[in-house]
Formats: sequence, structure tokens, C-alpha cells
Amino acid sequence: MRGKFKFQDDYVYRMPVHFGGFPFYPGRPVYRDMLGIAIKYETEQEALLQYIPEDFELLEPIVSVQFSDCRDVDWMSGEEYRLMQVTAPVKYLGNSEGLCGDYALVIWENKTCPIVGGREEDGVPKLFADIASERHVGDHWFTAASYEGYTFLKIDFLEKGELNKQDIERINKNSKINLFGWRYLPNLGKGGATLSHATLYPQEVIAKQVWSGEGSVQWTRLTQEQHPLQSHIIKALTELPLVKYTNALMIKCAAQLNVGDSKALP
Amino acid sequence: MRGKFKFQDDYVYRMPVHFGGFPFYPGRPVYRDMLGIAIKYETEQEALLQYIPEDFELLEPIVSVQFSDCRDVDWMSGEEYRLMQVTAPVKYLGNSEGLCGDYALVIWENKTCPIVGGREEDGVPKLFADIASERHVGDHWFTAASYEGYTFLKIDFLEKGELNKQDIERINKNSKINLFGWRYLPNLGKGGATLSHATLYPQEVIAKQVWSGEGSVQWTRLTQEQHPLQSHIIKALTELPLVKYTNALMIKCAAQLNVGDSKALP
Amino acid sequence: MRGKFKFQDDYVYRMPVHFGGFPFYPGRPVYRDMLGIAIKYETEQEALLQYIPEDFELLEPIVSVQFSDCRDVDWMSGEEYRLMQVTAPVKYLGNSEGLCGDYALVIWENKTCPIVGGREEDGVPKLFADIASERHVGDHWFTAASYEGYTFLKIDFLEKGELNKQDIERINKNSKINLFGWRYLPNLGKGGATLSHATLYPQEVIAKQVWSGEGSVQWTRLTQEQHPLQSHIIKALTELPLVKYTNALMIKCAAQLNVGDSKALP
Amino acid sequence: MRGKFKFQDDYVYRMPVHFGGFPFYPGRPVYRDMLGIAIKYETEQEALLQYIPEDFELLEPIVSVQFSDCRDVDWMSGEEYRLMQVTAPVKYLGNSEGLCGDYALVIWENKTCPIVGGREEDGVPKLFADIASERHVGDHWFTAASYEGYTFLKIDFLEKGELNKQDIERINKNSKINLFGWRYLPNLGKGGATLSHATLYPQEVIAKQVWSGEGSVQWTRLTQEQHPLQSHIIKALTELPLVKYTNALMIKCAAQLNVGDSKALP
Repeated sequence: MRGKFKFQDDYVYRMPVHFGGFPFYPGRPVYRDMLGIAIKYETEQEALLQYIPEDFELLEPIVSVQFSDCRDVDWMSGEEYRLMQVTAPVKYLGNSEGLCGDYALVIWENKTCPIVGGREEDGVPKLFADIASERHVGDHWFTAASYEGYTFLKIDFLEKGELNKQDIERINKNSKINLFGWRYLPNLGKGGATLSHATLYPQEVIAKQVWSGEGSVQWTRLTQEQHPLQSHIIKALTELPLVKYTNALMIKCAAQLNVGDSKALP
Repeated sequence: MRGKFKFQDDYVYRMPVHFGGFPFYPGRPVYRDMLGIAIKYETEQEALLQYIPEDFELLEPIVSVQFSDCRDVDWMSGEEYRLMQVTAPVKYLGNSEGLCGDYALVIWENKTCPIVGGREEDGVPKLFADIASERHVGDHWFTAASYEGYTFLKIDFLEKGELNKQDIERINKNSKINLFGWRYLPNLGKGGATLSHATLYPQEVIAKQVWSGEGSVQWTRLTQEQHPLQSHIIKALTELPLVKYTNALMIKCAAQLNVGDSKALP
Repeated sequence: MRGKFKFQDDYVYRMPVHFGGFPFYPGRPVYRDMLGIAIKYETEQEALLQYIPEDFELLEPIVSVQFSDCRDVDWMSGEEYRLMQVTAPVKYLGNSEGLCGDYALVIWENKTCPIVGGREEDGVPKLFADIASERHVGDHWFTAASYEGYTFLKIDFLEKGELNKQDIERINKNSKINLFGWRYLPNLGKGGATLSHATLYPQEVIAKQVWSGEGSVQWTRLTQEQHPLQSHIIKALTELPLVKYTNALMIKCAAQLNVGDSKALP
Repeated sequence: MRGKFKFQDDYVYRMPVHFGGFPFYPGRPVYRDMLGIAIKYETEQEALLQYIPEDFELLEPIVSVQFSDCRDVDWMSGEEYRLMQVTAPVKYLGNSEGLCGDYALVIWENKTCPIVGGREEDGVPKLFADIASERHVGDHWFTAASYEGYTFLKIDFLEKGELNKQDIERINKNSKINLFGWRYLPNLGKGGATLSHATLYPQEVIAKQVWSGEGSVQWTRLTQEQHPLQSHIIKALTELPLVKYTNALMIKCAAQLNVGDSKALP
């Protein structure tokens, strides 16, 4: 007998689709309790440009590596997960809006649900890694990312002082972040793309406390055998020259991820 | 300065795309060492039909729940992971080929890499769960799947006897499996689909040893709070009436997943 | 050639001993950031007495089940872990001091280091379990403990209101906790004990915020096959009659574990 | 009312003791399915002697590092876990028996239950680490151990050829292993030992298949901040000079751990 599942027009579905969808709703989930450590460094422009699609202009040859411990995530019933996000500052050239923001080179996360959602629903290039929770001894904060026991990224941050209220208010005036991604699905059984387009994923971060300090990032290459799916990514990031560190911050904040305002860029 | 990353025609990419793709190659990865426990039960046809898309005909009102411990997976450098697969027997009606196979209602896996690949490259509805490795005391084998500490699926198998060589040869004559999925991507920022089509993902299983026995499956509903993204799926499967068990097998095998032969069904 | 490792008198060692010890120091590690959910219920006195050693008097037939999410643990460089602690209120009868406190029936923790230390250095009966981080939707908080995918303990707490400053000050006047354990080591290769004595492990908790509410605890028996080492413990706790809930609190606090003041009770 | 739990003479207990013990039984659990990779290297005798207690004679300045993937472990209902074991060849001098065997410098395991049992019931210095399952691409096998994302031990093995049946029979003639440990419990609240003695833990390994090859071991120091409880152990092993590799084997085997024959050495 013929199956009875039908899609409803304008509903939103996720795989598996046949257990039902729901009307589109512009969701803007809140992450109520985040700790971020963001470390920026200058690299060589030519080296970085090879990883930025032609539809974007690189504004500065800066790599930003950001660890976040995301807690009290409302769409997950207050669950928690951690991420390591690598971005570069860009302007989108594909239309006349002159949108500026951060192009997501890669984001590692330690839980699958946000990885799948971010890839399929926002075009954000999320991948899995084991990511330790932040630890610290006194003012020295640190964490690391690894795959099957092999460390590939270490972050250290030496806290130097807390920002005052006015500084935080100033930071919060620029609370909106344009995160750019590239959503891509391959053809099945042959080369080429079924779907390939730039995406915009607006986010908002409200700082509660901010500390300045000195940060460092240490990349370690893994062989293709150690990490068959990601060694080329880690290699690329390891080989980007580290000219100098430009900024390091630690931040306690809340974030609103405006998934419902995500869009495919023309 | 404008980014320099360009897609190469006919190359295959995965997100993140900008670290490079590769020429299409009809990959057929081998899972060299699998242990499967497959338990089938009859349900009510009407109940099951609501989860089968119209493009498929349900051949029998049978639910198949299969645990697999996948070891020595070649595309993962011999890594291992585990899965719980729920399927129903169908015929594809969308073209004149009369293809029969198994429609994937849902597949839980405990590692992210195969989940992401299966969803994006094959339309197979894979989701994350914690899945314990199989254990046994004497002839009683068992395992369970859970999310954040809440069990939602238990499997028990009582081994009754090993099949002989001729039986296994007979099984291996029907080693090919048509796994059907449905690949779906939502629009961004509004309802409706960017992409939505049935898929065929051919697989092949070569049995080395097979045991018959008695099996049972126990579903436990989780509340929406306990599992916001999957409670509707578990609820649907929990509510499918269990009319009677029809078959239970344990199998040691190797499998070849013919990803390179996957296709979008018209 | 003869080994050269020698113990130094009055040093403290942990296995492996031969990499060196350190002078005794009365360590009192601080847990800077804890979230606790404590639920108490009355049981039948006779049933509970069978699990309390003769050296203790049971003060009330009350079982206390406490979940704690321990963060910023200083002896672990600020690492985090979670626990489920089951205690009963007792008085120690082995000497004339009339010490009152909580007898530890069992404590499950999700990291090994504090389990090993607690057992060997304090006689606290810690065991391993997977323990999910607390989650909540609005005022409903919940978490669960499981082993290899099988849930054996669920906790739910419905927050009803926050205590005021005076109430918290009052609570903090009784910040000291006498946790009692029983340190035991078996003989090797035969029955009987090498070592067996009651222990006192003083702790201190400073509440920052406290919420009252309604709590519930759900025990689920596991078979001996599902949990060969602990099924008798879970069975015992499952079979303790739940007469009525007497109290439920959620607390944000810091704790000081006065390991250095632990002692063997005569 | 006074507690009613009493110890029964000659019973065996584990913490928590009050849920009951059992008559002594000379348990000899079987590990039905193990894969081991053992790599030996020569070090400098003086350097190694400082970690060998005076009651032992170091027979050769050889460090053996052995990874084992333990599957189908009968006392755990067929569960699995992995370990990294570091030993040196010794003779026990504390009595006249002239017992030779392997002194356990440290054993890392990735599950808590065998760690606790091994420490308390056999004096074997087991500690926790994340230990990846063995992976391989062709003849190259590898795995790693880490703590909170920081790798501290990598093992590589290049398989060169399988041993024939006679060689395996020859190996199995020496199937018995004397593993030596040192059981130690500190005093509470002051320095010095409550209990401190050498132990013998007899084991037996039956090889099914063995491969010779070339192995290497790479230790990486962790800072005290990164691993407060174990950095001194990893430092000691990292600083042992690696003079030359002397042997490397991969083995599929079954093992019998004769816990019931363990004894305290006089």
C-alpha cells in the first residue's frame, strides 16, 4: 500500500522528514551563559585569500580563533556544548548591500545536534572535535581540541585586567555579528554541486564581563591517517603564517542566534 | 582584496568547501568487521504508512530494528562506531524500475562524521545518540541507546543456534541492499524546501557467521523537555503497535557501502 | 641491579608511589562554582538501618539524594565533574564525641580522579556513572544517571521561589558538614579485610543563592547482567520505600572539602 | 536507632561495604578478545632504577609500553575498555622465591571500574586517560592517549609479518606473567602510610595470532596546570632516555587475570 506521508507547503522539515514538520517561525534561540576566549592574529594576505571565496573581499589578513563554552542553550533545554570557531573579516560582494562580517573558515563543536543544524540550515561549516572545557590556574586559562586522542589546537590566555562598565557598554553597541557561511550539497553519484551558495547567519552577543589579556594559539598538524576527513583543513590553518597576535579577550556573555533571519545570499 | 577560492567544475566538495575538493570517484568504502543484531516485528499497516512518503509502497507492515557495531571502517582509518537503524520494506513508485529495498525511518549513530556524510551525501536520516557497545552473558546479548542519560531504546537477543555454511551461502546470494532515504534541505529564513528528493544508497553485506534467536525491542518515550529535537520521532516509534516479533538474527559480517552509486531518485 | 626508590617517612604517596610523594599538607580544596539539587524523602527505618553500620545511629529515616555539578575545582585546574550523592543522617557511636553528620551510602561521579582519591584518601564510597549536566525548561530542572546506556536514576526539580538574603545567611551559619564514610581494603587472595574503619571527611558549603521547590527521584533497577558491579546497590536503593518527600532545594554555592582534616574514626 | 549492618567474617567487600559482601572465591576472569601492541625500548639503567622500589631488582634497563584493547571481558558482561601499560622486568628480592616478572610503573585505562578494582584489590597503579581505539591504514597501526584534549602518548606500529604456528606455540609455552604492583594507602589527616606492600598479580595470555614489526613510542610532557595529578609521572617517563627500540609485536589473544591468586608479598 502506498505511503501516506505528504509534505505540507511552507512547512519546515528536518531529516528524517516523515515524522512531521512545523510552520516556519523566525526562531532566535538564546544562549544564556557563554564563556568565550577570542584570540586574533595577523597572517599573510595571499595565504589567507586562497580560502576566501571570490564573492567576498578580505578586509584585513586577520585570523580570529574563538573558543566558546555554551551553557544554558534554550533550544537544547539548557544543555551545553563547546566550540572552536575560526573566522576572517570580510565584505560580501555578491550584492550591493556592502555587508561586512566574519567568514566562517571552520567551526569545531563537540555535539552533533548543533553541527547538523548549522550545516544544513545556515551553511556554517561545522565539524566534530573533542573540545575540553576551559580550565585555569589563577589568571592563566587554557583548553584544547583533539580527535581520537590527537591534539590539533591549543589555546592559552593570560588574563591581564577586567574592562570597566563603559568599555563593555561600548562593546555592546556593536553587538550584532554577521556570520557568513557557504551552504553546499554535492550531487549524488557524480561530481558537481546540487546546491552551492553564500549564507548570512545574523547573531548578537551581549557582553556581561570582559577581560583583556595575552593569548596564543598552537596548531598541530595531524597526518591524513590520523584524521582522514580533516587533515587538509588543519594543515591549511597550521600553514597560515602567524605574523603577530593583535588582540585577545575573554568574555562572559549571552548570545542570540538569529537563525530565523538566516538567508541565502544571491 | 577579493577572495581567491573558486570551485572546480565536477569536483566534489564538503563544507567547509574552501579548503578544496577532489575529482568525483565512485567510492565504495568497506566496513571490514561488523556485528549486527537485527530484530523484526509486525506492526499495524495504517500506523506505519503515515511515516512512508507517497513515492513508496509499503510491502509489509514490518519494522526492522538493527544494531550494528561497525569496526575497521576503512574511510575512517579503521575507526569504529555504532548505530541503531530502523527501516521498513518498500518499493519505489517514482519510476518504472520497481526498485525494492528498505526505507530508512531513522538511524541513530554515536559519531558525527558518518552522520553528516550520510545526511548530506545520501539523504539518510541519521541522528546522534549514545549507543553502548554490545554486551553479553552467555547467549544473552543486549545493548541500549540513550540521550543525555535517558534510555530510549533497549535491545535484547537470545542466541539459539548458529546457521550452517549452506544457510550463510544462501543469505549471501542476496547480499545487496537498496537503502532508501529522503534528502531534504530547508529554505533559509522562510518555510518550504530548497531541496527535497528520494535517494537510493546501495549497500552490500557479506555474512561470515549468523545466529538465529529470539529478540525483543523496548522503546521508552522521552518528553520534549528531555529530548527537544527527537521526542516526536521516539514517540512515533513507541506508538507503533508491536503485533508480534517475526525474526531475529545476529550476524558477523563485512559490508561495502556503495556511496559512489548513490543517486537522487527522479 | 637493585631498585633505588625508597619511601620518605611522613611523606604522602598515591599509587603509583615510585614517582615520588610530598610532605603532608592539610589540603582544603575549593570548589568555586557548584550547582546542587538536593531532594530528601522519608523511608522506612528498618529498611534503611540494614545499610548503616552498627557504629552509627540513624537519626531519622531520611534518604537525601543530591546532584551536584562541580565547576572550577581548584585541585583539577578548574576542571568540572558531576556527582549524585546518597546519604542518611547519623550520629557516630564509636567514641564519646557525639559527632553528627551524613553517612555516605553511595556517591556516583562521572570522572575517575575524584573517585579514586575519595575512596582511598577518605573512605567515601564513590563509583562511576554517566551523569548528564543539569538541564531545565523554565522552572523545571532535571538530570539523570546511567550506565552503558541504561538509566538508573532520574531527578526532577520544580523551582518555586528564591530564598531571601536572611534565609541564606541562616543556612550559611550551618555551613559545616560531617560526611562519614567507611574505608575498606580487602585481603588479597583470601577473604577478610586488610583495613576497615569509619572515616570523617569534613566539608563546608557556602550558599550564594537557594531556591525551594518540589523534587522527585526515580530509581530504575538494572539487572545484574546490565550492571554486574552495581546492580545490588541500585536494587537496594530502589527497594527502600518512598514514604514521602520531605524537602527539595536547589543551591548555587562554593564548597571547601577539608581533605586535610579527614581522619580515621577509632 | 543503631545501624544494623555487620561485616561477615571472611567475606569480601568493596566500598560501599554496607550493601553486602560475598564469600571469597578465587576469581580468574577471562578477557576473551584482546588486541595488544607491545613496544620495548632500552633506557639508561640509572634513570630507570629510581622508579623501582628497593625490594625489586631490575633485570634489564628495558621499558615496555603496551596498548591493549580489551573486549568481551567476562566480569563486565562482555564490555570493553582500553589500556596503556608501562612496565619494567624485575625480580622480587623480598623473599627467597626468586620470582621474576614485570613491575607496573603505571597503567592508564579509559574506564573507572577496572581502575578502582586494580588499585584496591591488586595494588596495580592504574590511572585514567582517554585512550583511542587502535586504528590502521594498511600495515600501519596507531593510537594515542590524552587527558582533557592534551595528547601525552602516541604509539605507532608497522606490521612486518605474521608469526607461524610453531612460533606462537613457543610463545604460549611462556603464557604466565607475574605482574608486580605496590599497594599503598595513606594515613588520613597526616603523613605516612596506613598500608604499603608489594603485590603479585598473576596473569596468563594465550596468543592466537602474532605479528612482528617496527614500533615507536612518543611521549609528550604536559604541564602541571594541564594535568595536575599526573604531570610528574608523564615527565618521568618522557625523560627516560630512549637508547634504542628492542622489540615490537602485535598480538591477538585471550587473557586470564588470576585476581584470586593475587597476594601481598611479604
